[in-house]
Amino acid sequence: MRNIMIEIEYDGTQFCGWQIQPNGRTVQGEIKKALHTLTGNQIKIDGAGRTDAGVHARGQVANFFMDLAIPIGKIPMALNSLLPEDVSIVNAVEMPQDFHARYSAIGKRYSYLIYLNSVRSPLMRNYGQHVSYKIDIDKMKDASKVLLGTHDFKGFMASGSKIINTVRRIDEIDFNIHEKNLEIAFEGNGFLYNMVRIIVGALIELGRGKISKEHIILALQSGNRKLLGPTAPPQGLYLDKVFYPLTR
Amino acid sequence: MRNIMIEIEYDGTQFCGWQIQPNGRTVQGEIKKALHTLTGNQIKIDGAGRTDAGVHARGQVANFFMDLAIPIGKIPMALNSLLPEDVSIVNAVEMPQDFHARYSAIGKRYSYLIYLNSVRSPLMRNYGQHVSYKIDIDKMKDASKVLLGTHDFKGFMASGSKIINTVRRIDEIDFNIHEKNLEIAFEGNGFLYNMVRIIVGALIELGRGKISKEHIILALQSGNRKLLGPTAPPQGLYLDKVFYPLTR
Repeated sequence: MRNIMIEIEYDGTQFCGWQIQPNGRTVQGEIKKALHTLTGNQIKIDGAGRTDAGVHARGQVANFFMDLAIPIGKIPMALNSLLPEDVSIVNAVEMPQDFHARYSAIGKRYSYLIYLNSVRSPLMRNYGQHVSYKIDIDKMKDASKVLLGTHDFKGFMASGSKIINTVRRIDEIDFNIHEKNLEIAFEGNGFLYNMVRIIVGALIELGRGKISKEHIILALQSGNRKLLGPTAPPQGLYLDKVFYPLTR
Repeated sequence: MRNIMIEIEYDGTQFCGWQIQPNGRTVQGEIKKALHTLTGNQIKIDGAGRTDAGVHARGQVANFFMDLAIPIGKIPMALNSLLPEDVSIVNAVEMPQDFHARYSAIGKRYSYLIYLNSVRSPLMRNYGQHVSYKIDIDKMKDASKVLLGTHDFKGFMASGSKIINTVRRIDEIDFNIHEKNLEIAFEGNGFLYNMVRIIVGALIELGRGKISKEHIILALQSGNRKLLGPTAPPQGLYLDKVFYPLTR
């Protein structure tokens, strides 16, 4: 059986997230349907990670096993012709048998888009968080540095998550501002459920003066989620890239 | 009566264009409804120009007359609270009695976004034209120069238009490329129906080698629309700004 890795872009607006659900339209479900049409078989697809409803991806990764003797370069076009227009296979690579989209991953990059303007933007409504008040970006940059490195991010995880090991490493947090768009990019070895959105929510609260850097330090030390602000909304979040050995 | 100028941003995806229609959801119609709720009156709204279904605006302009003694600075928020989320009033200015959004305009800027990639992009599907084949951007830039200045653009107008004077002046055509996005911006004293989309369609045909610069020159001289390629699709087009004396 061939082990096929695919890179996937999707607009999360009309999806109930990545993972197949009994009710609700999901990215994994749409790909599974397309693979069924293409191969005639029910094929299991493993994704590098879940994304929530409304969250987008520029470089989600998944893998699956199949027999079909289609040239690897034809797989994106073949699947795209069967997929709805809010999901697209942007690349396909044949991998060794032991490759697994999730377990082989050594890191991920997410970015979060914030739209800074006193009035809302129709063109950005599904693709960024609207922040209408003034925020101090330099203060946010400064505070974000305490998150770099290896920490127990228990306080930066959505409640109800069953993860036991909450230690993660963040390698980079980059701020880029272009006109009214502030993009904050995160690279690390892995992220807990809602971790990026909780960090962004906290940085915005800090930027508007509702919490201080000490709250973030204390949340890292104590694991107390309540010290941070509300979770930033899903539509600003993008899964940009999943890293594997040799692809970084 | 106060003469109010508003600047409007909208996502054209779910609209049947700017202009009120008996059937179909329009931007002008939504603003009229919001003004009716706000003032209790049926108010006539004049737009700087029509946009087609799927075409977006970052800076459409309209004006209307009203009695309501609301401070000018509060008008955007008041209307936005009544408008659907795909349209937003981004600015309001009180103007002299003789200001008219259309007749007072001395120029407009449009931009057109082209997404260059072999595979389609879900995130761009409603906001740019997907071009999957190679195009020669330098050739397009060079050919676009013949359109600068004052010409009879009869050959660059959708058939069925009843306009008699088809002479227009294009002051600038700017090409900006950022990663896979090619943006072509047009500034001029006015544009005929579908003129920007016809120009972009022709430039793309030229960029892929289907027509030459001579076709464009001949279309200018002869007024023959058939020398050019297909009209570029609406979702790549943005009305960026309308110019008035003193606002330029």
